[in-house]
Amino acid sequence: MSADLQPLFEPRGVVVAGASTHPGKFGFATLHNILTCGYEGQVFATNRSATPDNPVEILGIDCLPSVRDVPQGQADLVYVCVPAPAVPDVLRDASAVGIRAAFIASAGFGEGGDEAGAAIGAELAAIAAELDLAIAGPNGQGLVSTPASLCAQFVAPWPKRGGISIVSQSGNLASGAMNHADAGGVGVARAVSAGNSLCLDVDDYLAWFGADEATQSIIAYVEGVADARRFYDVLAQTARAKPVVVVKGGSSSEGAKAAASHTGSLATDDRIFDGLLRQAGAWRARDIGAAFGAAAALGVHGHMRGPNVAVLTNAGGWGVLTADALEPSLVDLMVLPDDLHAQLDAIMPPRWSASNPVDVAGGETRETIPAALRVLAEHDQVDAVLLLGLGIQSNTASLFRAGRFANDPDIERICAFHERQDRLYAQSVVDVSAETGTPILAATELAIADPANPGPATLRANGHPCYASPSDAVDALSALYARGRFLGALR
Amino acid sequence: MSADLQPLFEPRGVVVAGASTHPGKFGFATLHNILTCGYEGQVFATNRSATPDNPVEILGIDCLPSVRDVPQGQADLVYVCVPAPAVPDVLRDASAVGIRAAFIASAGFGEGGDEAGAAIGAELAAIAAELDLAIAGPNGQGLVSTPASLCAQFVAPWPKRGGISIVSQSGNLASGAMNHADAGGVGVARAVSAGNSLCLDVDDYLAWFGADEATQSIIAYVEGVADARRFYDVLAQTARAKPVVVVKGGSSSEGAKAAASHTGSLATDDRIFDGLLRQAGAWRARDIGAAFGAAAALGVHGHMRGPNVAVLTNAGGWGVLTADALEPSLVDLMVLPDDLHAQLDAIMPPRWSASNPVDVAGGETRETIPAALRVLAEHDQVDAVLLLGLGIQSNTASLFRAGRFANDPDIERICAFHERQDRLYAQSVVDVSAETGTPILAATELAIADPANPGPATLRANGHPCYASPSDAVDALSALYARGRFLGALR
Repeated sequence: MSADLQPLFEPRGVVVAGASTHPGKFGFATLHNILTCGYEGQVFATNRSATPDNPVEILGIDCLPSVRDVPQGQADLVYVCVPAPAVPDVLRDASAVGIRAAFIASAGFGEGGDEAGAAIGAELAAIAAELDLAIAGPNGQGLVSTPASLCAQFVAPWPKRGGISIVSQSGNLASGAMNHADAGGVGVARAVSAGNSLCLDVDDYLAWFGADEATQSIIAYVEGVADARRFYDVLAQTARAKPVVVVKGGSSSEGAKAAASHTGSLATDDRIFDGLLRQAGAWRARDIGAAFGAAAALGVHGHMRGPNVAVLTNAGGWGVLTADALEPSLVDLMVLPDDLHAQLDAIMPPRWSASNPVDVAGGETRETIPAALRVLAEHDQVDAVLLLGLGIQSNTASLFRAGRFANDPDIERICAFHERQDRLYAQSVVDVSAETGTPILAATELAIADPANPGPATLRANGHPCYASPSDAVDALSALYARGRFLGALR
Repeated sequence: MSADLQPLFEPRGVVVAGASTHPGKFGFATLHNILTCGYEGQVFATNRSATPDNPVEILGIDCLPSVRDVPQGQADLVYVCVPAPAVPDVLRDASAVGIRAAFIASAGFGEGGDEAGAAIGAELAAIAAELDLAIAGPNGQGLVSTPASLCAQFVAPWPKRGGISIVSQSGNLASGAMNHADAGGVGVARAVSAGNSLCLDVDDYLAWFGADEATQSIIAYVEGVADARRFYDVLAQTARAKPVVVVKGGSSSEGAKAAASHTGSLATDDRIFDGLLRQAGAWRARDIGAAFGAAAALGVHGHMRGPNVAVLTNAGGWGVLTADALEPSLVDLMVLPDDLHAQLDAIMPPRWSASNPVDVAGGETRETIPAALRVLAEHDQVDAVLLLGLGIQSNTASLFRAGRFANDPDIERICAFHERQDRLYAQSVVDVSAETGTPILAATELAIADPANPGPATLRANGHPCYASPSDAVDALSALYARGRFLGALR
């Protein structure tokens, strides 16, 4: 039975228990972030110094002395910053006023090895069961829920809205994954720093994300699991519903020691864990950046129906390196079927490569790239298209615009033309992949070297990723193929 | 004997032969880029329509009818955009007025397989020898030389000045490597798109870069070499003087086919090529982004004196993933020696990890990170330090600054504090590595996710790289260790 996390991620109202007047404290920063990121429910804050004679106002909120003073039924979630020994009473008070979920940011529940803290930690699970409270944390950074415009965390960022949901046993890596969203083009639905997981564990979040309409793909950062059997079962069930990308921290012996120090996780045999992930249908990524790249492609494009990749490029060297990156991967640089070759021959410049990578070799007209994208994506043997060289024309325009002749009408005209072409190419990626159902990815170092370039910027504005290297793009294609294979959805 | 490329990269004056009035043509864009990127020598342009009765002015330059009309001894370099059949005469005219180097952008010298073009191509080598001309290209994009403020290419970018020099058999990958410079923090000295290399070949550029004072490290993109023996000899000699990072295009069978289509390179056995690179002392990178990361570390830090890496982090999960990334690498997550452990214990917060990764676990004061960087870098058994978590505080500040309370003096004060701390950490990386000679690298996804973040931005402003993932940073550390080993400079 999976926990009901609706009050955690879609609360009617939120209470910050232990709000602080000092902007360097968790209880200030979290209240600030809830108030400024667009949350539309009621927001309450408590501060134990607040009395009728000594009102405490923080960021325009009149603090209540206690969670007991929150009007009955007005809030679903309490974000707890008070010291550990005070937490049980806060939770009981919260339940008494109708609150159904808690995020505990406070530390001191035995994670440092102290017995008194561990005793309070043990009490949390009992309270959760007794009061039917969904308790996240303790010792976590918070949670984000963009469909609810809720930024209930003491750290950044507040990511753009999108379909990726994140659960992480490292708060910083939850932030890290979200940091990729704005630059990476694909936004976040839910994210939670699981903290010490004394009540809700990674599998509880996975199960809920699996059924969550706002979630299109999932990233999980895991250092250790308390119950491997349950983790496997939930992961396998979740992966049937949504693509799941897992980063395992502590996969090496030195990493496992670091994980023991970080989250107290026990070392696991990495081969066994790897097999578990594979059998459950999850995709494994080496780090958070790679996980983001895979989750972005999976969320936007779903899966590939076979291993056949067509590469379209106006940059010969990139084509060569991409062919090299494809060889050891799960997917293939397909041989162009005769009919596809003939179709391309009709629209490509005379000196095109006449093979895959389909290299226009600098001879393109303004319609060549969009037309070729369409011919490739519409062919029934092409399972994905990878577009290289996006943004090169705008990069040239950018140098023109920086020069002292930028106001010359001829230069303005050529710049506008170059930029229009890159926007057209990017828009074609978006439109043709949507119309044909064939995944189309794009890759260029300009995605990170010049994020303002109209090529990658147009993809980003449409919620599409743009990969920075051939190997990053090929990793994402491999994830799409593995997903199609797992779903039994191959041609 | 190595070719004298001084007139190519440090010309007294430049002629664009075949300048165009149309801003979409090579002969316009190159003239524009030379004129607007700061070149201080004289600039001439030729256009065959120019006559005394019909003057042609392009971007303020009065075009000459022919290179013959350039005043004797006023220019060292001619950038050639005229059609292939006209090129031999341009070169003879250039030599007659004292020009000593040519970059030929024009194509049509047999690279498409036509015999007439190939005949002209064969003539180029004879002309080069006869006239003692250094001839680059043909069919290349151009060259960049930041010490001469010379941007003699028809494409972008004009990179920031720095110590990386680039030779590439793909023009687009020369641009790609340069595109990394501004975002990557480390600038470019020289870059050349080698084109078809009918006269000057990759090894000629390598040899010259090896003796060039402006060059601190070298990136070479190679699809094929005409003379493997000579390539090896020059590479080995160059690598003794300067670190060389090589990207081999066509390392796979599919990639080799793509390379044959792109530059006509013959397939080589990749294991043999790999052995050749290793024996010559070059570092091999899988793609241009990885090559840039390695060349940046090598140029700034030189080499490591042993395999011992100390990781300093305020982000536990990043520490775990970095430990995982170190395990299969050339370098080691060192065990902290007792004296170093004791030194750290004296300055670290009580709950620090007490092992490597050195995790401050959120308990740092404003001086902890700089002090720990210094203690680590000064220890004689620490060969390199990797700082994680840079920019987290400024990321929090960035969310405060975006909110509606940004003008609150308390919020302004905490934002300034957070940002000052990240600047301090970054400046410590720069200063302590310079003072101790111990390489210190930094890694955070914010390097690409939020380039304006004061942490990575301060590194960049000081000409230091900032890596975006644990594996990127570990690749760079491995390159530094391999360099120390090759130089026989290990402890």
